[in-house]
Amino acid sequence: MINAERTPVSDGPMPDVQGKADGRNVAIDKVGVKGVTYPIRLHVPSLSEVTGPCNAALLPTSSEQTTVATISMYVALPATQKGTHMSRFLEVLNEQTAAGSPAITPARIPEMTRAIAQRLHAPFAHFSGEFVYFIRKAAPVTGMAGLMDYRASFACTAQAGEQGSVDLVMGLRAPATSLCPCSKEISAYGAHNQRCEIEARVRTWPQANRTMWLEELAATLEGAASEQVYSILKRPDEKHVTEGAYDSPKFVEDIIRDLALAMDREQRVAWYEINSENFESIHSHNAYARITRAKDGWRGPTS
Amino acid sequence: MINAERTPVSDGPMPDVQGKADGRNVAIDKVGVKGVTYPIRLHVPSLSEVTGPCNAALLPTSSEQTTVATISMYVALPATQKGTHMSRFLEVLNEQTAAGSPAITPARIPEMTRAIAQRLHAPFAHFSGEFVYFIRKAAPVTGMAGLMDYRASFACTAQAGEQGSVDLVMGLRAPATSLCPCSKEISAYGAHNQRCEIEARVRTWPQANRTMWLEELAATLEGAASEQVYSILKRPDEKHVTEGAYDSPKFVEDIIRDLALAMDREQRVAWYEINSENFESIHSHNAYARITRAKDGWRGPTS
Amino acid sequence: MINAERTPVSDGPMPDVQGKADGRNVAIDKVGVKGVTYPIRLHVPSLSEVTGPCNAALLPTSSEQTTVATISMYVALPATQKGTHMSRFLEVLNEQTAAGSPAITPARIPEMTRAIAQRLHAPFAHFSGEFVYFIRKAAPVTGMAGLMDYRASFACTAQAGEQGSVDLVMGLRAPATSLCPCSKEISAYGAHNQRCEIEARVRTWPQANRTMWLEELAATLEGAASEQVYSILKRPDEKHVTEGAYDSPKFVEDIIRDLALAMDREQRVAWYEINSENFESIHSHNAYARITRAKDGWRGPTS
Amino acid sequence: MINAERTPVSDGPMPDVQGKADGRNVAIDKVGVKGVTYPIRLHVPSLSEVTGPCNAALLPTSSEQTTVATISMYVALPATQKGTHMSRFLEVLNEQTAAGSPAITPARIPEMTRAIAQRLHAPFAHFSGEFVYFIRKAAPVTGMAGLMDYRASFACTAQAGEQGSVDLVMGLRAPATSLCPCSKEISAYGAHNQRCEIEARVRTWPQANRTMWLEELAATLEGAASEQVYSILKRPDEKHVTEGAYDSPKFVEDIIRDLALAMDREQRVAWYEINSENFESIHSHNAYARITRAKDGWRGPTS
Repeated sequence: MINAERTPVSDGPMPDVQGKADGRNVAIDKVGVKGVTYPIRLHVPSLSEVTGPCNAALLPTSSEQTTVATISMYVALPATQKGTHMSRFLEVLNEQTAAGSPAITPARIPEMTRAIAQRLHAPFAHFSGEFVYFIRKAAPVTGMAGLMDYRASFACTAQAGEQGSVDLVMGLRAPATSLCPCSKEISAYGAHNQRCEIEARVRTWPQANRTMWLEELAATLEGAASEQVYSILKRPDEKHVTEGAYDSPKFVEDIIRDLALAMDREQRVAWYEINSENFESIHSHNAYARITRAKDGWRGPTS
Repeated sequence: MINAERTPVSDGPMPDVQGKADGRNVAIDKVGVKGVTYPIRLHVPSLSEVTGPCNAALLPTSSEQTTVATISMYVALPATQKGTHMSRFLEVLNEQTAAGSPAITPARIPEMTRAIAQRLHAPFAHFSGEFVYFIRKAAPVTGMAGLMDYRASFACTAQAGEQGSVDLVMGLRAPATSLCPCSKEISAYGAHNQRCEIEARVRTWPQANRTMWLEELAATLEGAASEQVYSILKRPDEKHVTEGAYDSPKFVEDIIRDLALAMDREQRVAWYEINSENFESIHSHNAYARITRAKDGWRGPTS
Repeated sequence: MINAERTPVSDGPMPDVQGKADGRNVAIDKVGVKGVTYPIRLHVPSLSEVTGPCNAALLPTSSEQTTVATISMYVALPATQKGTHMSRFLEVLNEQTAAGSPAITPARIPEMTRAIAQRLHAPFAHFSGEFVYFIRKAAPVTGMAGLMDYRASFACTAQAGEQGSVDLVMGLRAPATSLCPCSKEISAYGAHNQRCEIEARVRTWPQANRTMWLEELAATLEGAASEQVYSILKRPDEKHVTEGAYDSPKFVEDIIRDLALAMDREQRVAWYEINSENFESIHSHNAYARITRAKDGWRGPTS
Repeated sequence: MINAERTPVSDGPMPDVQGKADGRNVAIDKVGVKGVTYPIRLHVPSLSEVTGPCNAALLPTSSEQTTVATISMYVALPATQKGTHMSRFLEVLNEQTAAGSPAITPARIPEMTRAIAQRLHAPFAHFSGEFVYFIRKAAPVTGMAGLMDYRASFACTAQAGEQGSVDLVMGLRAPATSLCPCSKEISAYGAHNQRCEIEARVRTWPQANRTMWLEELAATLEGAASEQVYSILKRPDEKHVTEGAYDSPKFVEDIIRDLALAMDREQRVAWYEINSENFESIHSHNAYARITRAKDGWRGPTS
């Protein structure tokens, strides 16, 4: 059974409809499978491995976590070929994973994307996966620890061949608190605040020699808000975050600008796309801001 | 073409697979169509028609509005019949509406539900529809008016026949603001607040002789929160709602209890199911509360 | 009250926090409101107005329909200004609409987008709205008419000023049927088929002098599938579409290529982005294909 | 830090607002936290542990898998108490899990639910969690194995105290293929088919001495469809499932009835609620059927 996973099974004498020639002369930018649900296993760094900002609670040793990814895999299809072989995307997915504990791992995404291009005889392949990522975080006063959930993603585009170019984008969305400076300024007391979601997609310089961890990206996003969000807070913690938000009022514009400055300072980042959305507590619609920026010298993709 | 809509078209000599007998002896509670998207047209009452609480902005005359409903229609299927005729659900839907401007109307939902039972030769039929409903609401200080959007619903169960029993449930979900009493009490300044969603499903007494309007239900829901939500607020309005929320701190428990008391006082309501959900600004999860209650003397359905 | 909607209300002597200078030197690409729910009113063309392909059932006269849009409105914010004035987006939205029957209309979207840039003192403004659009369509054999629902959209970017440039993108997503050529070829009988969703976003040439209607875009999308989808089918219709799909097997690659060819032939279209997604009946994931193309001579935006 | 998780931290001298008396005399049916995202770790049975139907591919040894659950936890709140202590729900969640690898496990859900009631001083507590569950399944002809994803759930209601009653409901939703008998019967060739989703929620007899596994529930659901769905199929497999679906045409009514009969035969099941939804390939709406049934002698909850 394990071999069956690793060796492509012959389709026998059946006609290969997808492999036929196509006369319409239309190349397809992306074709493949969408909405594949699959386990993903991630290395959780020990704090000694992390070199940037980090809000994760102290853990004695490094470890790993497994969650669930929603995956898309596409190739570019030349104009002359009738169809792609959809089952081969799934074969590559299965081959990349140990039989005993199937799961993709971030470290192998570039290699897997290249393998897709190769197996499908395509000039390019695209892989993207979104997943929940947990970070163990301690409440600010009592230190009580709980698990915060983030939405993370990896997107990769790769040319076929071992020397083929690889583009990798890492993403994270973090919940946080925003408190309105205008409301605070004009009101005799109080200030409207709300949950917001801050998101970043980043590309790092190829020459960056320190891994950028999701823990660091989370801390950078959370640092741009009026206050962080926690999974468990006791009363001393609640007092702390209530006053903390009031002490740091920020429009959605402020959050995105402060985050842009933090991204500018982060030397590993070469390109970033950041946005923040406030689920306004006084309206039924949201406030939103977005910045995309490539640093000087970046010659890679910019979207 | 208009006649084609109103007269069931013969299926000719083709076999009626659905109409065959079934030998498995299994009755089906509900079978039909789900996720039908269809226009809904609603009468917008003038303020003279409204007898209860109302936050709607003054309108000189009554009017109507058309939005989009997502509809399900089911029948109970006796054990002896192989299948229901799905196309007839759509036929009934189309027949209830004028050809020139197709749309269902709330007033005809009971009649339409009975027509479904009759056309499908079923003992019972169920209809439910969810839709956006707009209420024109004025900002609290400047009076600037804007459109607030609510999620409304009607659910109906009817026996076949003109004398058949009819059960009708009206629902509405309204956004509002909640401000945490604990956070206010323990903090030197500020208090965490957030958007919440308050929802009610109600049945009225058969003998209630005044229509209960969605505008009244919206005002009742909004009256239970720390503060109302608006679509457009200028700075004097923002000051008003910020201070208003701070002056009226409420846990999700307080909101649901105050709403229960308002429902108890509302003499037209015989049964209610209410819930409130706070999108906590200091957590990534929500706070939720729910109460279901039938008033003394109610003998209708209770779920 | 009506005047209140049309005349910006003074914020009085309160401090204008948003209007302050900002020293961080970070321009914001897009900032504004997201998730605004608002009525949209559309002209439904009579068949004499339509010059391209059209599957709409015969209607004696032209008419209009009102549905519900989900709207985003953004501006570019210069580096020197602290914040944008969110309430003004809603003011512009309200001003564009008659007080008696508030709704946006597609024809006024460019003008409204320009007005946003002007009111917010911004170099550029962006507007986008997604909404349900109904087309009355007759079953292929019995002619029985019903309402098909589509997901439509308009996106507009405009420079401030009456001479400012305007970019407009029209989009539509249509459900259809796809039937697998490989499954048909290799199986002794039958062929797996499924609902698919085909989507197009198009820009037209500025010099195109005939309006491109959503009805035409729908017919073009549906024409690329194995078979069209209907809201109501009687048995002769069901036989027709079952055999029609079997007679026209198409991979997702075939659908997207045939649609690309149709878009190439459509002289009004200058740029298109098309995709199709098959909700595979034999898998729990989907098949997907996408093509983006600008025609020769197009110098406008390409994403 | 580990101790901090396990020992409730004192809130110090701050006022306990939630603990105050409430004078409104309104008991709350359910109040608590909703939308908590948390890891869940499940035992994957070896085939020797499974006694019922099973489509899982052979695995040499038993193992476990970790995925992500969306959790709600509620208590009933007496009329006399102002509020519940929301952070304690999270404390109980954290305490039930090892510090090194935090995750809930199905086996401990009843105990955890009772612990919630006890810690919150509530007469009853409710727990529910929904999560992705993977089953390794082999293609029908080539035997190629892949991971199928299902949506699973556990819901538990428990009285406080070690002797308190416990109600547990297990749920699963599986994708499958349905092929229309009417379409097959009336058409010269082909038959419309589509992905469907079949769902069951079950309660087992307290005296059932063999565990009912999610693998068995999945196989029972899949056995009621026209054909099963797989994550990876080669051409011989595709031929097999295409012909298999054509050989076993079923209305949504047939699927739900055959599933009801299978549930009736399954001796461990005391109560079931089953539904099936067809994403019709010829319509833009879905077909749906539902049956709820308690077996003779069942005296537990029936909703």
